Amino acid sequence: MSDKSDRAKSMLLDLQSEIRAKLEFADKDVLLQEDEWDRSEGGGGGGRTWAFTAGKYLEKGGINFSDVWGTSLPKTATQDRPELAGAPFRAMGVSVVFHPFNPHIPTSHANVRFFQVNPEGEDTCWWFGGGFDLTPYYPILDDVIEWHEAARLTCDAYDKTLYPKFKKWCDEYFFLPHRNETRGVGGIFFDDYVGEDFDDSLAFAEKVGRTFADSYFAIFNRRKETQFSKEQKEFQKYRRGRYVEFNLVHDRGTHFGLQSGGRTESILMSLPPEVSWNYNWSPPKGSPEMDLYNNFLRPRNWLEMKSQ
Amino acid sequence: MSDKSDRAKSMLLDLQSEIRAKLEFADKDVLLQEDEWDRSEGGGGGGRTWAFTAGKYLEKGGINFSDVWGTSLPKTATQDRPELAGAPFRAMGVSVVFHPFNPHIPTSHANVRFFQVNPEGEDTCWWFGGGFDLTPYYPILDDVIEWHEAARLTCDAYDKTLYPKFKKWCDEYFFLPHRNETRGVGGIFFDDYVGEDFDDSLAFAEKVGRTFADSYFAIFNRRKETQFSKEQKEFQKYRRGRYVEFNLVHDRGTHFGLQSGGRTESILMSLPPEVSWNYNWSPPKGSPEMDLYNNFLRPRNWLEMKSQ
Repeated sequence: MSDKSDRAKSMLLDLQSEIRAKLEFADKDVLLQEDEWDRSEGGGGGGRTWAFTAGKYLEKGGINFSDVWGTSLPKTATQDRPELAGAPFRAMGVSVVFHPFNPHIPTSHANVRFFQVNPEGEDTCWWFGGGFDLTPYYPILDDVIEWHEAARLTCDAYDKTLYPKFKKWCDEYFFLPHRNETRGVGGIFFDDYVGEDFDDSLAFAEKVGRTFADSYFAIFNRRKETQFSKEQKEFQKYRRGRYVEFNLVHDRGTHFGLQSGGRTESILMSLPPEVSWNYNWSPPKGSPEMDLYNNFLRPRNWLEMKSQ
Repeated sequence: MSDKSDRAKSMLLDLQSEIRAKLEFADKDVLLQEDEWDRSEGGGGGGRTWAFTAGKYLEKGGINFSDVWGTSLPKTATQDRPELAGAPFRAMGVSVVFHPFNPHIPTSHANVRFFQVNPEGEDTCWWFGGGFDLTPYYPILDDVIEWHEAARLTCDAYDKTLYPKFKKWCDEYFFLPHRNETRGVGGIFFDDYVGEDFDDSLAFAEKVGRTFADSYFAIFNRRKETQFSKEQKEFQKYRRGRYVEFNLVHDRGTHFGLQSGGRTESILMSLPPEVSWNYNWSPPKGSPEMDLYNNFLRPRNWLEMKSQ
């Protein structure tokens, strides 16, 4: 068990550093607050939280590593494997959220995680999970197509059935039923991933993390100098409310963290810096904001739109 | 069944109007947006939403009436009566939230509700629920004592055992385990209330609503001209984040509304207007903000502090 965990941990820590390097290259003003923490409740483990604020372009963000273990896997971790709930486990991962100032840069989230579970009297089982998704405030079709194209290429190199499956999973996961909206334009999301063997699975998980970093900072750098108005900033703050609603009402990762005795400040670091709720607001007809609602906040086959 | 419902509905609509009148007297600039809505999903019913913004003192608020029925009571409504889940029901209530501009005026919430449930082959059962609680940003002990004293007087007139029970219930309900903080300084909270008879129960529920309105606007009017700094406003926006966390992660009322097909904009009207999340912030030692954390955000016997 420890060899696999050691290798997954080493990959995840490298990934955390690589994403940070890309951020600091894209935004040289960003301030880092680093916290190493230990978990006492319900098992052991700890993590390395990197919180970022006050960049020229990044308003708030985080790149977190955590590695926690316990005697009883929380039920939120095992939606598809209920028989594992209650078994001893180890869960590690890197979670990333970026909330830029500029509403022309999308918010984005990524996660790469590794689980090991020891059901009593059975062999240890393990799997990877992860993915990345994009939450634009203003609709730029080319960025969305590029985002999905990169996801598809990464998946296809391992198995051509993965992208369609993981893209659909992402659309279904990042959905707000009470708003009848997707959180954004999606990407890929997967859980319980076991490839041909451990090496192959580890390599895939790592490639997912690197694809996220490359794809996101390509968009970030392209849009970071775009001018924006006070009204566009207000719209971003309003839409960030949906991000909060998703993370606090629906997100299984957030609930897993809070239930498993994770560090609250690290888990809720995903929440945006400045948010507003306005009663019953809806976008004006014919506006870019309405275009976002009508054409970007629902599941679509983005890659079929390339030639348009 | 309909006679009780009619009388409860009439009381609740009057209560809604009375609270509005008190608000409009305390803040003559406040703008009202009124929406009458019907519920189509999962049963029937509707409501009258009164959303307020742009007051001189009130930043955002709502006074909602709703009356919904369905064939299957959601499980969130029946924590203490699991045997009723799935039975035909009618639920009506008035819900109030006020988010003032001035951080020296607390945020406050109140709710008065009436339930009727028809379990198959059994008599219809009914009960009232409700309560009110106060969420100050700055610690003013006299206001908190006055708030609890009024709650105690209202309860004592019916039954001297009620205040201690409902005060404790409130402290336990409005608690954020992931922060180890109460939402505010509490008040009273109760469910499954059946007094001597229906008349008595209805009168108690009404009195609870009126006590809230009297107590809250007394504090509101006393504090509304107090000067505040930019830093105090920032602290208010930061603390409002806890309000969002409570309502979206823990509040049974919010979950009941979203699960029973309620109107999302009316349910989430409780969320504050402008909110901020800052990573790992904590109040400076010896500050009023630290006094709030240390002495106001945990359950206390406020009425024992009167003579101090």
